[in-house]
Amino acid sequence: MDFSEIKAMTFDVFGTVVDWRGSIIREGEDVWTAKGVDVDWPDFADSWRGGYGPSMHRVRTGELPWMNIDALHRLILDDLLEQHQVSGLSEADKVQLNKVWHRLNPWPDVTSGIARLRKRYIVASLSNGNVALLVNMARHGGFSWDCVLSAELAKHYKPDPEVYQAAAALLGLEPHEVMMVAAHNGDLIASKAVGFRTAFVHRPKEHGPDQITDLTPDPSVDVIAKDFNDLADQLQID
Amino acid sequence: MDFSEIKAMTFDVFGTVVDWRGSIIREGEDVWTAKGVDVDWPDFADSWRGGYGPSMHRVRTGELPWMNIDALHRLILDDLLEQHQVSGLSEADKVQLNKVWHRLNPWPDVTSGIARLRKRYIVASLSNGNVALLVNMARHGGFSWDCVLSAELAKHYKPDPEVYQAAAALLGLEPHEVMMVAAHNGDLIASKAVGFRTAFVHRPKEHGPDQITDLTPDPSVDVIAKDFNDLADQLQID
Repeated sequence: MDFSEIKAMTFDVFGTVVDWRGSIIREGEDVWTAKGVDVDWPDFADSWRGGYGPSMHRVRTGELPWMNIDALHRLILDDLLEQHQVSGLSEADKVQLNKVWHRLNPWPDVTSGIARLRKRYIVASLSNGNVALLVNMARHGGFSWDCVLSAELAKHYKPDPEVYQAAAALLGLEPHEVMMVAAHNGDLIASKAVGFRTAFVHRPKEHGPDQITDLTPDPSVDVIAKDFNDLADQLQID
Repeated sequence: MDFSEIKAMTFDVFGTVVDWRGSIIREGEDVWTAKGVDVDWPDFADSWRGGYGPSMHRVRTGELPWMNIDALHRLILDDLLEQHQVSGLSEADKVQLNKVWHRLNPWPDVTSGIARLRKRYIVASLSNGNVALLVNMARHGGFSWDCVLSAELAKHYKPDPEVYQAAAALLGLEPHEVMMVAAHNGDLIASKAVGFRTAFVHRPKEHGPDQITDLTPDPSVDVIAKDFNDLADQLQID
Protein backbone atom coordinates (compact mmCIF):
# COMPACT_ATOMS: atom_id res chain seq x y z
CA MET A 1 0.00 0.00 0.00
CA ASP A 2 0.93 3.68 -0.26
CA PHE A 3 2.08 4.89 3.13
CA SER A 4 2.65 8.50 2.10
CA GLU A 5 -0.65 9.70 3.58
CA ILE A 6 -0.11 8.08 6.98
CA LYS A 7 0.76 10.57 9.72
CA ALA A 8 -0.06 8.63 12.87
CA MET A 9 -0.19 5.07 14.11
CA THR A 10 -2.59 4.11 16.87
CA PHE A 11 -1.98 0.92 18.79
CA ASP A 12 -4.23 -1.55 20.45
CA VAL A 13 -2.57 -2.40 23.75
CA PHE A 14 -3.83 -5.55 25.53
CA GLY A 15 -2.33 -8.40 23.56
CA THR A 16 -0.81 -6.21 20.86
CA VAL A 17 1.67 -4.24 22.99
CA VAL A 18 1.66 -6.18 26.25
CA ASP A 19 1.51 -9.85 27.16
CA TRP A 20 -1.37 -9.55 29.62
CA ARG A 21 -1.68 -13.30 30.16
CA GLY A 22 1.96 -14.06 30.81
CA SER A 23 2.33 -10.96 33.01
CA ILE A 24 -0.65 -11.81 35.21
CA ILE A 25 0.40 -15.43 35.56
CA ARG A 26 3.93 -14.38 36.53
CA GLU A 27 2.91 -11.79 39.13
CA GLY A 28 0.16 -14.07 40.42
CA GLU A 29 2.48 -16.99 41.01
CA ASP A 30 5.35 -14.81 42.29
CA VAL A 31 3.37 -12.55 44.60
CA TRP A 32 -0.29 -13.36 45.06
CA THR A 33 -0.32 -17.11 45.68
CA ALA A 34 1.67 -16.49 48.85
CA LYS A 35 -0.84 -13.81 49.88
CA GLY A 36 -3.67 -16.32 49.75
CA VAL A 37 -4.79 -16.12 46.13
CA ASP A 38 -3.94 -19.78 45.69
CA VAL A 39 -5.50 -20.37 42.28
CA ASP A 40 -4.58 -21.82 38.92
CA TRP A 41 -3.11 -18.60 37.57
CA PRO A 42 -3.38 -19.34 33.83
CA ASP A 43 -7.05 -20.14 34.36
CA PHE A 44 -7.53 -17.09 36.62
CA ALA A 45 -5.92 -14.78 34.04
CA ASP A 46 -8.11 -16.21 31.27
CA SER A 47 -11.26 -15.80 33.37
CA TRP A 48 -10.37 -12.23 34.32
CA ARG A 49 -9.79 -11.33 30.70
CA GLY A 50 -12.86 -13.35 29.73
CA GLY A 51 -15.04 -11.04 31.80
CA TYR A 52 -13.80 -7.98 29.92
CA GLY A 53 -15.90 -8.21 26.74
CA PRO A 54 -19.17 -8.94 28.56
CA SER A 55 -18.57 -6.15 31.10
CA MET A 56 -17.90 -3.60 28.34
CA HIS A 57 -21.06 -4.82 26.65
CA ARG A 58 -23.02 -4.01 29.82
CA VAL A 59 -21.68 -0.44 29.57
CA ARG A 60 -22.41 -0.31 25.83
CA THR A 61 -26.03 -1.32 26.32
CA GLY A 62 -26.54 1.07 29.24
CA GLU A 63 -26.99 -1.68 31.82
CA LEU A 64 -24.01 -0.13 33.60
CA PRO A 65 -23.19 3.59 33.59
CA TRP A 66 -19.89 4.64 32.04
CA MET A 67 -17.12 2.95 34.01
CA ASN A 68 -13.47 2.81 33.08
CA ILE A 69 -11.50 -0.41 32.75
CA ASP A 70 -10.03 -0.18 36.24
CA ALA A 71 -13.59 -0.25 37.56
CA LEU A 72 -14.65 -3.09 35.23
CA HIS A 73 -11.55 -5.12 36.09
CA ARG A 74 -12.44 -4.69 39.75
CA LEU A 75 -16.02 -5.89 39.27
CA ILE A 76 -14.72 -9.02 37.54
CA LEU A 77 -12.00 -9.53 40.13
CA ASP A 78 -14.47 -9.37 43.02
CA ASP A 79 -16.61 -12.03 41.34
CA LEU A 80 -13.58 -14.25 40.70
CA LEU A 81 -12.29 -13.95 44.26
CA GLU A 82 -15.72 -14.99 45.50
CA GLN A 83 -15.92 -17.91 43.06
CA HIS A 84 -12.50 -19.11 44.18
CA GLN A 85 -13.42 -18.55 47.83
CA VAL A 86 -10.43 -16.28 48.36
CA SER A 87 -10.89 -14.28 51.54
CA GLY A 88 -8.46 -12.40 53.70
CA LEU A 89 -7.30 -9.84 51.14
CA SER A 90 -7.47 -6.31 52.48
CA GLU A 91 -9.01 -3.56 50.39
CA ALA A 92 -5.51 -2.20 49.76
CA ASP A 93 -4.45 -5.67 48.53
CA LYS A 94 -7.40 -5.81 46.15
CA VAL A 95 -6.58 -2.37 44.77
CA GLN A 96 -2.98 -3.47 44.29
CA LEU A 97 -3.94 -6.78 42.65
CA ASN A 98 -6.43 -5.03 40.36
CA LYS A 99 -3.62 -2.73 39.23
CA VAL A 100 -1.65 -5.68 37.87
CA TRP A 101 -3.19 -4.47 34.59
CA HIS A 102 -1.04 -1.32 34.97
CA ARG A 103 2.06 -3.53 35.29
CA LEU A 104 1.78 -5.72 32.22
CA ASN A 105 5.02 -6.35 30.37
CA PRO A 106 5.53 -5.49 26.71
CA TRP A 107 6.41 -8.10 24.11
CA PRO A 108 10.18 -8.09 23.45
CA ASP A 109 9.99 -6.07 20.21
CA VAL A 110 7.80 -3.26 21.58
CA THR A 111 10.23 -0.79 23.11
CA SER A 112 12.61 -0.78 20.15
CA GLY A 113 9.81 -1.00 17.58
CA ILE A 114 7.83 1.94 18.97
CA ALA A 115 10.99 4.07 19.19
CA ARG A 116 11.69 3.35 15.52
CA LEU A 117 8.13 4.04 14.35
CA ARG A 118 8.09 7.32 16.33
CA LYS A 119 10.91 8.64 14.17
CA ARG A 120 8.46 9.07 11.32
CA TYR A 121 4.94 8.80 12.71
CA ILE A 122 2.96 10.14 15.61
CA VAL A 123 2.58 7.05 17.76
CA ALA A 124 -0.34 6.78 20.17
CA SER A 125 -2.09 4.14 22.19
CA LEU A 126 -5.74 3.54 21.31
CA SER A 127 -6.93 1.15 23.94
CA ASN A 128 -9.96 0.32 25.99
CA GLY A 129 -7.62 0.72 28.96
CA ASN A 130 -8.09 3.93 30.89
CA VAL A 131 -5.60 6.77 30.67
CA ALA A 132 -3.99 6.16 34.07
CA LEU A 133 -3.53 2.48 33.29
CA LEU A 134 -1.89 3.29 29.95
CA VAL A 135 0.40 5.93 31.47
CA ASN A 136 1.52 3.64 34.27
CA MET A 137 1.98 0.71 31.86
CA ALA A 138 4.24 2.69 29.53
CA ARG A 139 6.38 3.87 32.44
CA HIS A 140 6.53 0.31 33.76
CA GLY A 141 7.44 -1.10 30.36
CA GLY A 142 9.94 1.58 29.45
CA PHE A 143 8.35 2.77 26.24
CA SER A 144 6.85 6.16 25.32
CA TRP A 145 3.80 7.27 23.35
CA ASP A 146 3.52 10.65 21.69
CA CYS A 147 -0.02 10.63 23.02
CA VAL A 148 -2.09 8.36 25.25
CA LEU A 149 -5.46 7.90 23.58
CA SER A 150 -8.09 5.80 25.24
CA ALA A 151 -11.70 4.74 25.00
CA GLU A 152 -12.07 6.70 28.24
CA LEU A 153 -11.75 9.96 26.28
CA ALA A 154 -14.67 9.04 24.02
CA LYS A 155 -16.68 7.28 26.75
CA HIS A 156 -17.22 4.49 24.27
CA TYR A 157 -15.47 1.16 24.10
CA LYS A 158 -13.88 -0.28 20.99
CA PRO A 159 -15.09 -1.46 18.58
CA ASP A 160 -17.64 1.40 18.73
CA PRO A 161 -16.82 3.80 15.86
CA GLU A 162 -16.82 6.80 18.22
CA VAL A 163 -13.51 5.67 19.72
CA TYR A 164 -11.65 5.74 16.41
CA GLN A 165 -13.37 8.93 15.26
CA ALA A 166 -12.46 10.71 18.50
CA ALA A 167 -8.85 9.56 18.20
CA ALA A 168 -8.44 10.96 14.69
CA ALA A 169 -10.14 14.22 15.70
CA LEU A 170 -7.91 14.67 18.77
CA LEU A 171 -4.84 14.12 16.59
CA GLY A 172 -6.18 16.70 14.13
CA LEU A 173 -6.11 14.14 11.32
CA GLU A 174 -8.46 12.60 8.82
CA PRO A 175 -9.17 8.91 9.45
CA HIS A 176 -7.24 7.88 6.31
CA GLU A 177 -4.13 9.53 7.78
CA VAL A 178 -4.18 7.14 10.74
CA MET A 179 -3.13 3.49 10.79
CA MET A 180 -4.54 1.20 13.47
CA VAL A 181 -2.06 -1.44 14.61
CA ALA A 182 -3.53 -4.46 16.36
CA ALA A 183 -3.26 -8.21 16.80
CA HIS A 184 -7.03 -8.52 16.59
CA ASN A 185 -9.04 -8.62 13.40
CA GLY A 186 -12.16 -7.16 15.01
CA ASP A 187 -10.36 -3.99 16.07
CA LEU A 188 -8.85 -3.56 12.61
CA ILE A 189 -12.11 -4.16 10.78
CA ALA A 190 -13.92 -1.63 13.01
CA SER A 191 -11.23 1.00 12.50
CA LYS A 192 -11.23 0.42 8.76
CA ALA A 193 -14.99 0.99 8.72
CA VAL A 194 -14.39 4.61 9.81
CA GLY A 195 -11.57 5.08 7.30
CA PHE A 196 -8.38 4.09 9.12
CA ARG A 197 -5.60 2.15 7.46
CA THR A 198 -4.81 -1.10 9.23
CA ALA A 199 -1.79 -3.19 10.22
CA PHE A 200 -2.16 -6.68 11.64
CA VAL A 201 0.61 -7.78 13.97
CA HIS A 202 0.92 -11.47 14.82
CA ARG A 203 0.75 -12.27 18.53
CA PRO A 204 0.21 -16.02 18.40
CA LYS A 205 0.99 -16.49 22.10
CA GLU A 206 -1.38 -13.86 23.49
CA HIS A 207 -3.78 -16.56 24.68
CA GLY A 208 -1.11 -19.10 25.55
CA PRO A 209 -0.43 -22.39 23.82
CA ASP A 210 -4.07 -23.03 22.93
CA GLN A 211 -4.77 -19.83 21.02
CA ILE A 212 -7.26 -20.29 18.21
CA THR A 213 -8.25 -16.66 17.45
CA ASP A 214 -6.47 -14.05 15.36
CA LEU A 215 -3.91 -16.44 13.95
CA THR A 216 -4.82 -15.39 10.41
CA PRO A 217 -5.14 -11.74 9.39
CA ASP A 218 -8.43 -10.67 7.87
CA PRO A 219 -8.11 -10.24 4.07
CA SER A 220 -9.09 -6.56 4.44
CA VAL A 221 -5.97 -5.49 6.34
CA ASP A 222 -3.47 -3.24 4.57
CA VAL A 223 -0.26 -4.52 6.15
CA ILE A 224 0.74 -7.72 7.92
CA ALA A 225 3.76 -7.75 10.24
CA LYS A 226 5.42 -10.32 12.45
CA ASP A 227 6.06 -7.71 15.16
CA PHE A 228 6.71 -3.97 15.57
CA ASN A 229 10.30 -4.18 14.32
CA ASP A 230 9.14 -6.04 11.24
CA LEU A 231 6.60 -3.25 10.68
CA ALA A 232 9.42 -0.69 10.94
CA ASP A 233 11.54 -2.80 8.57
CA GLN A 234 8.75 -2.92 6.00
CA LEU A 235 8.51 0.89 6.26
CA GLN A 236 12.29 1.18 5.87
CA ILE A 237 12.69 3.03 9.15
CA ASP A 238 16.10 2.51 10.77
CA MET B 1 7.27 21.38 51.39
CA ASP B 2 6.86 17.61 51.63
CA PHE B 3 7.07 16.15 48.15
CA SER B 4 6.45 12.55 49.19
CA GLU B 5 2.78 12.62 48.18
CA ILE B 6 3.42 14.00 44.70
CA LYS B 7 3.00 11.42 41.93
CA ALA B 8 2.54 13.61 38.86
CA MET B 9 3.51 17.01 37.58
CA THR B 10 1.28 18.82 35.11
CA PHE B 11 2.72 21.63 33.05
CA ASP B 12 1.30 24.77 31.63
CA VAL B 13 2.72 25.06 28.12
CA PHE B 14 2.43 28.49 26.44
CA GLY B 15 5.10 30.60 28.14
CA THR B 16 6.07 27.95 30.68
CA VAL B 17 7.40 25.28 28.30
CA VAL B 18 7.68 27.17 25.04
CA ASP B 19 8.71 30.67 24.05
CA TRP B 20 5.63 31.46 21.98
CA ARG B 21 6.57 35.09 21.39
CA GLY B 22 10.15 34.53 20.26
CA SER B 23 9.13 31.56 18.12
CA ILE B 24 6.37 33.43 16.29
CA ILE B 25 8.59 36.46 15.71
CA ARG B 26 11.37 34.25 14.34
CA GLU B 27 9.18 32.24 11.96
CA GLY B 28 7.28 35.38 10.97
CA GLU B 29 10.39 37.30 10.02
CA ASP B 30 12.12 34.27 8.45
CA VAL B 31 9.19 32.91 6.46
CA TRP B 32 6.01 34.97 6.42
CA THR B 33 7.24 38.49 5.73
CA ALA B 34 8.48 37.28 2.34
CA LYS B 35 5.08 35.67 1.72
CA GLY B 36 3.36 39.01 2.12
CA VAL B 37 2.70 39.16 5.85
CA ASP B 38 4.83 42.27 6.09
CA VAL B 39 4.00 43.29 9.63
CA ASP B 40 5.81 44.25 12.83
CA TRP B 41 6.19 40.70 14.06
CA PRO B 42 6.67 41.42 17.79
CA ASP B 43 3.48 43.46 17.70
CA PHE B 44 1.68 40.83 15.60
CA ALA B 45 2.68 38.05 18.03
CA ASP B 46 1.49 40.09 21.01
CA SER B 47 -1.83 40.86 19.32
CA TRP B 48 -2.37 37.21 18.36
CA ARG B 49 -1.70 36.10 21.90
CA GLY B 50 -3.73 39.05 23.18
CA GLY B 51 -6.82 37.68 21.48
CA TYR B 52 -6.49 34.37 23.27
CA GLY B 53 -7.97 35.24 26.67
CA PRO B 54 -10.98 37.11 25.26
CA SER B 55 -11.70 34.35 22.74
CA MET B 56 -11.65 31.66 25.45
CA HIS B 57 -13.93 33.87 27.47
CA ARG B 58 -16.43 33.87 24.60
CA VAL B 59 -16.40 30.06 24.77
CA ARG B 60 -16.67 30.11 28.57
CA THR B 61 -19.73 32.34 28.51
CA GLY B 62 -21.42 30.35 25.75
CA GLU B 63 -21.18 33.14 23.17
CA LEU B 64 -19.17 30.67 21.07
CA PRO B 65 -19.74 26.90 21.08
CA TRP B 66 -16.85 24.73 22.24
CA MET B 67 -13.93 25.37 19.90
CA ASN B 68 -10.38 24.21 20.35
CA ILE B 69 -7.38 26.53 20.36
CA ASP B 70 -6.54 25.87 16.72
CA ALA B 71 -9.98 27.21 15.84
CA LEU B 72 -9.68 30.19 18.20
CA HIS B 73 -6.20 31.03 16.92
CA ARG B 74 -7.62 31.02 13.42
CA LEU B 75 -10.47 33.39 14.30
CA ILE B 76 -7.95 35.81 15.78
CA LEU B 77 -5.56 35.39 12.85
CA ASP B 78 -8.26 36.16 10.31
CA ASP B 79 -9.09 39.38 12.17
CA LEU B 80 -5.44 40.38 12.36
CA LEU B 81 -4.79 39.72 8.69
CA GLU B 82 -7.76 41.91 7.85
CA GLN B 83 -6.61 44.67 10.22
CA HIS B 84 -3.16 44.60 8.65
CA GLN B 85 -4.68 44.47 5.17
CA VAL B 86 -2.77 41.32 4.33
CA SER B 87 -4.27 39.68 1.30
CA GLY B 88 -2.98 37.10 -1.10
CA LEU B 89 -2.45 34.25 1.34
CA SER B 90 -4.02 31.03 0.12
CA GLU B 91 -6.17 28.97 2.45
CA ALA B 92 -3.31 26.45 2.67
CA ASP B 93 -0.96 29.29 3.67
CA LYS B 94 -3.34 30.41 6.40
CA VAL B 95 -3.62 26.87 7.76
CA GLN B 96 0.16 26.63 7.77
CA LEU B 97 0.64 30.03 9.42
CA ASN B 98 -2.00 29.22 12.05
CA LYS B 99 -0.06 26.07 12.90
CA VAL B 100 2.97 28.12 13.92
CA TRP B 101 1.53 27.45 17.40
CA HIS B 102 2.37 23.76 16.82
CA ARG B 103 5.98 24.73 16.07
CA LEU B 104 6.87 26.82 19.11
CA ASN B 105 10.32 26.24 20.52
CA PRO B 106 10.96 25.17 24.10
CA TRP B 107 13.03 27.24 26.52
CA PRO B 108 16.59 25.89 26.68
CA ASP B 109 16.11 23.99 29.99
CA VAL B 110 12.91 22.17 28.96
CA THR B 111 14.12 19.03 27.20
CA SER B 112 16.69 18.12 29.85
CA GLY B 113 14.48 19.26 32.73
CA ILE B 114 11.46 17.23 31.67
CA ALA B 115 13.60 14.14 31.11
CA ARG B 116 14.96 14.48 34.65
CA LEU B 117 11.56 15.06 36.26
CA ARG B 118 10.11 12.04 34.39
CA LYS B 119 12.54 9.78 36.20
CA ARG B 120 10.48 10.16 39.35
CA TYR B 121 7.13 11.69 38.41
CA ILE B 122 4.47 11.20 35.80
CA VAL B 123 4.93 14.27 33.64
CA ALA B 124 2.00 15.60 31.61
CA SER B 125 1.07 18.74 29.77
CA LEU B 126 -2.00 20.56 31.08
CA SER B 127 -2.60 23.26 28.56
CA ASN B 128 -5.37 25.16 26.88
CA GLY B 129 -3.71 24.03 23.66
CA ASN B 130 -5.51 21.22 21.88
CA VAL B 131 -4.18 17.68 21.85
CA ALA B 132 -2.88 17.77 18.26
CA LEU B 133 -1.07 21.05 18.90
CA LEU B 134 0.58 19.63 22.02
CA VAL B 135 1.58 16.39 20.29
CA ASN B 136 3.09 18.20 17.33
CA MET B 137 4.85 20.72 19.59
CA ALA B 138 6.53 18.03 21.68
CA ARG B 139 7.75 16.24 18.56
CA HIS B 140 8.97 19.54 17.13
CA GLY B 141 10.73 20.47 20.37
CA GLY B 142 12.25 17.05 21.02
CA PHE B 143 10.72 16.42 24.44
CA SER B 144 8.27 13.77 25.59
CA TRP B 145 5.29 13.76 27.95
CA ASP B 146 4.04 10.65 29.72
CA CYS B 147 0.61 11.95 28.83
CA VAL B 148 -0.80 14.84 26.82
CA LEU B 149 -3.56 16.42 28.89
CA SER B 150 -5.47 19.37 27.52
CA ALA B 151 -8.41 21.62 28.20
CA GLU B 152 -9.84 19.98 25.07
CA LEU B 153 -10.44 16.78 27.05
CA ALA B 154 -12.55 18.62 29.64
CA LYS B 155 -14.13 21.02 27.14
CA HIS B 156 -13.36 23.77 29.60
CA TYR B 157 -10.53 26.27 29.47
CA LYS B 158 -8.16 27.00 32.32
CA PRO B 159 -8.59 28.48 34.84
CA ASP B 160 -11.97 26.69 35.08
CA PRO B 161 -11.70 24.09 37.87
CA GLU B 162 -13.03 21.33 35.61
CA VAL B 163 -9.74 21.25 33.68
CA TYR B 164 -7.64 20.47 36.74
CA GLN B 165 -10.21 18.06 38.16
CA ALA B 166 -10.41 16.15 34.88
CA ALA B 167 -6.62 15.93 34.70
CA ALA B 168 -6.29 14.40 38.17
CA ALA B 169 -9.14 11.98 37.45
CA LEU B 170 -7.61 10.84 34.15
CA LEU B 171 -4.30 10.23 35.91
CA GLY B 172 -6.15 8.23 38.57
CA LEU B 173 -4.82 10.55 41.27
CA GLU B 174 -6.16 12.77 44.02
CA PRO B 175 -5.58 16.49 43.41
CA HIS B 176 -3.03 16.70 46.26
CA GLU B 177 -0.92 14.08 44.44
CA VAL B 178 -0.48 16.40 41.45
CA MET B 179 1.76 19.45 41.20
CA MET B 180 0.92 22.16 38.65
CA VAL B 181 4.01 23.78 37.14
CA ALA B 182 3.48 27.17 35.54
CA ALA B 183 5.00 30.59 34.97
CA HIS B 184 1.63 32.21 35.64
CA ASN B 185 0.20 32.94 39.05
CA GLY B 186 -3.42 32.69 37.89
CA ASP B 187 -2.99 29.11 36.69
CA LEU B 188 -1.30 28.11 39.94
CA ILE B 189 -3.89 29.78 42.15
CA ALA B 190 -6.73 28.08 40.21
CA SER B 191 -5.09 24.67 40.44
CA LYS B 192 -4.42 25.12 44.15
CA ALA B 193 -8.10 25.92 44.66
CA VAL B 194 -8.97 22.37 43.59
CA GLY B 195 -6.20 20.85 45.74
CA PHE B 196 -3.12 20.70 43.50
CA ARG B 197 0.34 21.50 44.78
CA THR B 198 2.01 24.31 42.84
CA ALA B 199 5.41 25.23 41.44
CA PHE B 200 6.13 28.66 40.01
CA VAL B 201 8.79 28.77 37.30
CA HIS B 202 10.26 32.13 36.34
CA ARG B 203 9.92 33.02 32.65
CA PRO B 204 10.76 36.73 32.76
CA LYS B 205 11.21 36.96 28.98
CA GLU B 206 7.89 35.37 27.97
CA HIS B 207 6.48 38.77 27.01
CA GLY B 208 9.72 40.21 25.74
CA PRO B 209 11.73 43.02 27.30
CA ASP B 210 8.69 44.87 28.63
CA GLN B 211 7.16 42.07 30.68
CA ILE B 212 5.37 43.34 33.78
CA THR B 213 3.26 40.28 34.75
CA ASP B 214 4.26 37.16 36.67
CA LEU B 215 7.65 38.44 37.67
CA THR B 216 6.88 37.71 41.34
CA PRO B 217 5.42 34.39 42.46
CA ASP B 218 2.19 34.51 44.42
CA PRO B 219 2.81 33.90 48.14
CA SER B 220 0.57 30.82 47.99
CA VAL B 221 2.85 28.75 45.76
CA ASP B 222 4.59 25.73 47.24
CA VAL B 223 7.82 25.84 45.24
CA ILE B 224 9.65 28.51 43.29
CA ALA B 225 12.16 27.54 40.61
CA LYS B 226 14.34 29.42 38.15
CA ASP B 227 13.67 26.81 35.46
CA PHE B 228 12.92 23.08 35.05
CA ASN B 229 16.46 22.00 35.83
CA ASP B 230 16.43 24.09 38.99
CA LEU B 231 13.17 22.35 39.92
CA ALA B 232 14.84 18.96 39.37
CA ASP B 233 17.85 20.14 41.40
CA GLN B 234 15.63 21.19 44.30
CA LEU B 235 14.04 17.72 44.19
CA GLN B 236 17.49 16.12 44.09
CA ILE B 237 16.80 14.30 40.83
CA ASP B 238 19.93 13.62 38.80
